Amino acid sequence: MDIFMDPASVAVIGASRKTGKGSFNVIENMLDFGFKGEIYPVNPLTDEIVGIKTYKDVKDIGKNVDLAIIATPRENVPRITRDCADLGIKGAIVVPQGFADADDEGKALQDQLTQIARDNGIRILGPNTLGIVNAFSGFTSSFMPLAREKVPVGIICQSGIFFVGSAIFTGMMGKGIDIANGCDVDFADALDYFGQDDDTRVIFIHIEGMKQGRRFFEVARSVARKKPVIALKTARTHRGAQAAQSHSGAMVGNHEVFEAAFRQAGIISARDPEEVLDYTKAFLNLPVMKGNRVGLVTLTGAGGIILIDTLQEYGLEMAKLSPRTIKKIKDLSPAWMPIQNPLDIWPALMKHGMEYVYELALTEILKDPAVDAAICIAIAPELPEDFHLDITGVIKKTAASFPEKPVVAWLYGPNQRSVSQGLEKGGYVVSLPTLPRAARTLAALYRRGQFLQ
Amino acid sequence: MDIFMDPASVAVIGASRKTGKGSFNVIENMLDFGFKGEIYPVNPLTDEIVGIKTYKDVKDIGKNVDLAIIATPRENVPRITRDCADLGIKGAIVVPQGFADADDEGKALQDQLTQIARDNGIRILGPNTLGIVNAFSGFTSSFMPLAREKVPVGIICQSGIFFVGSAIFTGMMGKGIDIANGCDVDFADALDYFGQDDDTRVIFIHIEGMKQGRRFFEVARSVARKKPVIALKTARTHRGAQAAQSHSGAMVGNHEVFEAAFRQAGIISARDPEEVLDYTKAFLNLPVMKGNRVGLVTLTGAGGIILIDTLQEYGLEMAKLSPRTIKKIKDLSPAWMPIQNPLDIWPALMKHGMEYVYELALTEILKDPAVDAAICIAIAPELPEDFHLDITGVIKKTAASFPEKPVVAWLYGPNQRSVSQGLEKGGYVVSLPTLPRAARTLAALYRRGQFLQ
Repeated sequence: MDIFMDPASVAVIGASRKTGKGSFNVIENMLDFGFKGEIYPVNPLTDEIVGIKTYKDVKDIGKNVDLAIIATPRENVPRITRDCADLGIKGAIVVPQGFADADDEGKALQDQLTQIARDNGIRILGPNTLGIVNAFSGFTSSFMPLAREKVPVGIICQSGIFFVGSAIFTGMMGKGIDIANGCDVDFADALDYFGQDDDTRVIFIHIEGMKQGRRFFEVARSVARKKPVIALKTARTHRGAQAAQSHSGAMVGNHEVFEAAFRQAGIISARDPEEVLDYTKAFLNLPVMKGNRVGLVTLTGAGGIILIDTLQEYGLEMAKLSPRTIKKIKDLSPAWMPIQNPLDIWPALMKHGMEYVYELALTEILKDPAVDAAICIAIAPELPEDFHLDITGVIKKTAASFPEKPVVAWLYGPNQRSVSQGLEKGGYVVSLPTLPRAARTLAALYRRGQFLQ
Repeated sequence: MDIFMDPASVAVIGASRKTGKGSFNVIENMLDFGFKGEIYPVNPLTDEIVGIKTYKDVKDIGKNVDLAIIATPRENVPRITRDCADLGIKGAIVVPQGFADADDEGKALQDQLTQIARDNGIRILGPNTLGIVNAFSGFTSSFMPLAREKVPVGIICQSGIFFVGSAIFTGMMGKGIDIANGCDVDFADALDYFGQDDDTRVIFIHIEGMKQGRRFFEVARSVARKKPVIALKTARTHRGAQAAQSHSGAMVGNHEVFEAAFRQAGIISARDPEEVLDYTKAFLNLPVMKGNRVGLVTLTGAGGIILIDTLQEYGLEMAKLSPRTIKKIKDLSPAWMPIQNPLDIWPALMKHGMEYVYELALTEILKDPAVDAAICIAIAPELPEDFHLDITGVIKKTAASFPEKPVVAWLYGPNQRSVSQGLEKGGYVVSLPTLPRAARTLAALYRRGQFLQ
């Protein structure tokens, strides 16, 4: 995979003359992304593209080239790939659609590509792919403009939308490999790469369908012991599977079989992109949960009750707090108030102040040996600062003192997004946009904890 | 309920002298909210509060008063309530905690209140309540400062957090009744009010537990035929039920029994506050779904596949598009491309332009008699305007031409929130933050359509 991830020289065959915003020009994009290697555009109709000398044919380059990006009409791809192999190019990224994702002719063309890879010592990524993103080396073959951020997250996917989503929208991709139709380079190759890659601490895999399941799950079992692997298996339903066949040309397999195999291999399964984002943030920043007992600090009894329901549905338990913890909060609360987990601290803080009571409650919960993780319910106020409702500083500071227990938060309010970003800075707390997502995320940390034991 | 919702004069017993931000002063809050009626503060320790003449005792007021707000220590509440009844006051809102939500003494005090209401011709709301919000009349008893917006949504709840959430965070409350411990005024009273209230088009009910289920469901059956009723039943699990007992002192009942009763009564059940918000927006703005067949316009094959899975899980179906619709898009797409629902228009719009292709595709889908509703997947770009990725104007315009079919959207991107607000303006489209939420919301419109048939 190294030749794909960090090439010194790249031929771009079928390079477009159209440049500027909205033109989706691969070469322009590579330059914007920070690629420092040699670029050899190939286009019979022009002599230069964005100021770079352009060749009529890949055979005219006359120098060693590491990697080819092929962006021609589909019918020319097999011939060009063979030419690349003959020239000693070790890898080809085949961008265009219209192969196993399309009609019978496309399927036949893709079979030719698989055969060429087998016979000619060239590795092929795609077809129907955005290819590679490597924010660390500065290389990308994506025609979509992407942000470059060196985050330790590796993404393997079958659709460019995950590159767009991860690199632009969530900022959660340091390296990406778009397997797409997967005529040669497959999930196992990509996962093996990320398993050994020191820049990558968390791996996310989007799977529509998979041909060589056995090899993949062998690789996964060993990689998952080293770092968290999150999988989003789409095409779960029968209709989804039919649609996947005309999207990536994938054989989709039975959903229950996949889920069982994920569990055995220690892969954390997710059901939608938001779940992937939550788990990625959690695995990057928080320790695993060693047991399944959760302590709650809340400003609202009703919120606590919603969370209790959800925790139970995700296989977690409300911790039974130690008498010492109970007493600490009881001393601050009205005499009539029954104190238990969830710790409803509203009456106490009305009397003794938000910051003091919140810090004490969260500290006692995290100190309690009967608690494996904490959820904080707090407010993301729109209100003026003097309203003293923003206690994210307190949550962050307290969580930092207990690095062995995960702390997640649900901030209620109109500034949820911005206040959450502040709370997450430093990496001590992960803030989830809904209570069920907070519970689900802790459950993933618990599953990983169980797997590692 | 009218005496609670729109009183001409209010006595505030146990009115606080503390004023200013963070003091939670009920009278100050009433004035800020726009209450124009008479206010009679009662506090033995002062002669005026925020410039209003203050009485030592409710008996000293010497004028007719519609409503009392009681905010004294719990042990004084029964005596004061009896005094109010003796003075001819018709309703009392009992704010403090420490009744059935607390210890045995609190339970006994609450039983006294129930008895006083029965014997003395006074109605009691609470205890443990924020009371009433009425943005239309300008009256509130809430000590939390709330925004005033005349939206046609009525909220019945058992926890003030829903007032805070609905009035401040989502802006989705025009009127609110916090039943809380429900010693006298109960769900049926509140629902009956909203059922007859012309200011209210959608009703949301948060229920932890309920004493008089039979009467409530009788009222609900008739109200649900007139307007959508959404219920969020918390304390679903055994542990949640235990916690609810010490929150609102509620008898919680069996979750399955509630779900079945909701279905029978035509109440739409939701599982978390986000679901409530989604359904509220949908019922306010969109028509019901007459069948269960959904058409999809998407820029990403993978997004389409995720949605197919989710639709099926929510009991909806991917529409089988008419040949005419297929042909319209096939004519714009590469020859090799199989065209079906979901309509993946990426290749077509790369060639013919985003706006043209998106409008055509959405129009054809909505025109198709085989389609009952549409989901639009589009981008909420961070990119410069000239990138032509924002097609929310096109979606809105097209949806407006088909008022009998609901259109929901999922906007992918960093500006999801702000672009969604623009898309939703005018009330033709509801934008959901995730694909599963988009599918779930259509399913609620379908359930309501089935109920009304």
